[in-house]
Amino acid sequence: MTDLMTLGKQAKAATRLLSHASTKDKNDALGKMAQSLIDQKEAILKANELDTASATENGVSETMIDRLTLTSERIDAMAEGLVDITLLPDPIGLVKNMWTNEAGLKIGQQTVPLGVIGIIYESRPNVTSDAAGLCFKSGNVVILRGGKEAFYSNKMIVTALQDGLQETAFPKEVIQFVEDTSRETARALMQLNRYLDVLIPRGGANLIKTVVENATVPVIETGTGNCHVYIDQSAELEMAKEIIVNAKTTRPSVCNAAETLLIHESVAEEFLPVIESALAEWKVELRADEAAQAILNESVPATEADWETEFLDYILAVKVVSSIDDAITHINHYSTGHSEAIVTSDYNASQQFHKEVDSAAVYVNASTRFTDGFEFGFGAEIGISTQKLHARGPMGLPELTSTKYIIFGEGQIR
Amino acid sequence: MTDLMTLGKQAKAATRLLSHASTKDKNDALGKMAQSLIDQKEAILKANELDTASATENGVSETMIDRLTLTSERIDAMAEGLVDITLLPDPIGLVKNMWTNEAGLKIGQQTVPLGVIGIIYESRPNVTSDAAGLCFKSGNVVILRGGKEAFYSNKMIVTALQDGLQETAFPKEVIQFVEDTSRETARALMQLNRYLDVLIPRGGANLIKTVVENATVPVIETGTGNCHVYIDQSAELEMAKEIIVNAKTTRPSVCNAAETLLIHESVAEEFLPVIESALAEWKVELRADEAAQAILNESVPATEADWETEFLDYILAVKVVSSIDDAITHINHYSTGHSEAIVTSDYNASQQFHKEVDSAAVYVNASTRFTDGFEFGFGAEIGISTQKLHARGPMGLPELTSTKYIIFGEGQIR
Repeated sequence: MTDLMTLGKQAKAATRLLSHASTKDKNDALGKMAQSLIDQKEAILKANELDTASATENGVSETMIDRLTLTSERIDAMAEGLVDITLLPDPIGLVKNMWTNEAGLKIGQQTVPLGVIGIIYESRPNVTSDAAGLCFKSGNVVILRGGKEAFYSNKMIVTALQDGLQETAFPKEVIQFVEDTSRETARALMQLNRYLDVLIPRGGANLIKTVVENATVPVIETGTGNCHVYIDQSAELEMAKEIIVNAKTTRPSVCNAAETLLIHESVAEEFLPVIESALAEWKVELRADEAAQAILNESVPATEADWETEFLDYILAVKVVSSIDDAITHINHYSTGHSEAIVTSDYNASQQFHKEVDSAAVYVNASTRFTDGFEFGFGAEIGISTQKLHARGPMGLPELTSTKYIIFGEGQIR
Repeated sequence: MTDLMTLGKQAKAATRLLSHASTKDKNDALGKMAQSLIDQKEAILKANELDTASATENGVSETMIDRLTLTSERIDAMAEGLVDITLLPDPIGLVKNMWTNEAGLKIGQQTVPLGVIGIIYESRPNVTSDAAGLCFKSGNVVILRGGKEAFYSNKMIVTALQDGLQETAFPKEVIQFVEDTSRETARALMQLNRYLDVLIPRGGANLIKTVVENATVPVIETGTGNCHVYIDQSAELEMAKEIIVNAKTTRPSVCNAAETLLIHESVAEEFLPVIESALAEWKVELRADEAAQAILNESVPATEADWETEFLDYILAVKVVSSIDDAITHINHYSTGHSEAIVTSDYNASQQFHKEVDSAAVYVNASTRFTDGFEFGFGAEIGISTQKLHARGPMGLPELTSTKYIIFGEGQIR
């Protein structure tokens, strides 16, 4: 088992320098890290071959292998990602409020880094450089623990990033890599309260669940999206069709894709056949309740499990509801709190949906696929929070900060 | 064991009404709850007698019994506390930012309640009404689980608050009380992820530790304060003396009291005797390192444990340091991250202290005792967060909120 205590101690020690580094020094270092990725492209591709070869040997699915595979272009994109982070505003050192209290103390609330951030993630090796870059720019030391399937790729990417840091005043310990992919080490990391300020899991529902259940370190839950589209009785058919097709089919494997369609009973008979034939192009399997089955040409009966599943596939659960209240009740019961949309032309329905649906992003007349740091205009994101504490929705650099009160006195006592 | 699942379900159901109640309705209800506390004063005092009698029987310390005891005045103060909360601005429904993204979506970030907040707390029964009032005003359903020593008092206070609600449109389930004070039920509450959005422990270090170690629900750590005062070589003696006396002696049992004095070696010989005689009035026990012992008249040797202990008593650890760097290293190693102060007349030292000390409140030339919601100008506080996630420092109503993105589209797809 990796000596996490030593690693944590080094990480904590490294925060003192990084946490109040200047924006210019951080940006220069990000540039050097980007260049180092390019310079070491050969070595990264070689390491990646080891990972993809063993994945193929183990009979891993093609989709997974595709997510795992690096190419020259993908490494260029990782390097560009780091350069893009230099263009984002530095979130550290902003004094958001400052006032004078009754005793005459000047009190300011200033943004500071969270400290040491642990990232536990799966498969895609680009997360290694994206997460390292975002944590670095926000003054946070990062401890990366990737999955074993991408071990060699992740390790080589970290080596390249650390090599880039050698030309700077930053110690390589600002980017830490856990070389041990065992479960025991992962669990120990989840309980490294002394050195870890936050833990952000990135991956499938099982990974997130394991982290939430085992971590004693504060966690930000990310990424599971059982997203709903509700078609109201006042919806325009064409808009409803386009939104559901977009939300379901443009990239079913991502968290902002729709998983359940709810439709008002008064338009179900007219709309469902049109939607069914539009989705047929992508061979979307429909898992429907009784009322919907009676209207649809081809569908399978939905089970209780279907309402709560994030399919991440060309599958859509379909349910007929008798009112917007029913739709909202269903959503608030089954949703993971990621993104939900209503299609409506009724003002009151739009207001009620915004007000009562309890999710990170609530849409009127737009696809759930917009829940994304870039689409929102934040730039790169470290993940999409589905919890209510600290951050909710796409998390960019400002979400990787905390605050401290800085107080200027003249000898005041209480 | 109490049926927490039922209780959680009721709590969750009650959020739908409370979370978007109008400010007026919430304030009216708070007024009714306050009146009900006054109306039921006799019953509350009687219930309290049961608690104090059994505490006396069990040989509980006088300080503890004092904290437990309610009087007519203390109940009036609880009622006034609720009325004061009506005067605070409603933190819910603020749209903090709103912009239009590239696709033409209007995206707004709106404050919303956290949902269901669990409070696990010890002894003082006034926490019951304070916490209930703050959660209510911020649109959150609260689940209260007090200690067994105040069981009858807490239960009667909740009954009074719920009676007040009967004259309103709010169901009494917006304020829930766990009638079972067993450890098993407390642990089950800490893992009620399906219904609980946040858990806030209020009490001693042991309670906080138990919650952090056992909870799978997101936790906000509060209240343990191992606070430091560092007297720099450039400090004014009179100011240094007043600040340390104030920070140590005005209320040693609270979390913002000082526990350790660090002093620069170049002023130790001159300052320590003056400070010692000032603290002697309160019979403060000094636990000192070797260098300080050599100067002090009367002291005991400090052990490693003394540097990390929140004494909450007339005890002060004293250490001589050779530089501000040493002081900051000591603080960042031993502190619980609550409040720290430097006494200095050197500009650079003040800047360095503000920058490098990693705590919720960092003071220059003022007593640590100011870390408090009322002193900061926030009004009542639910606790003082010593963690970096979500909230740090005194937590008022805004810290009891989350956000959601409300998005206005016109059929946009991605």
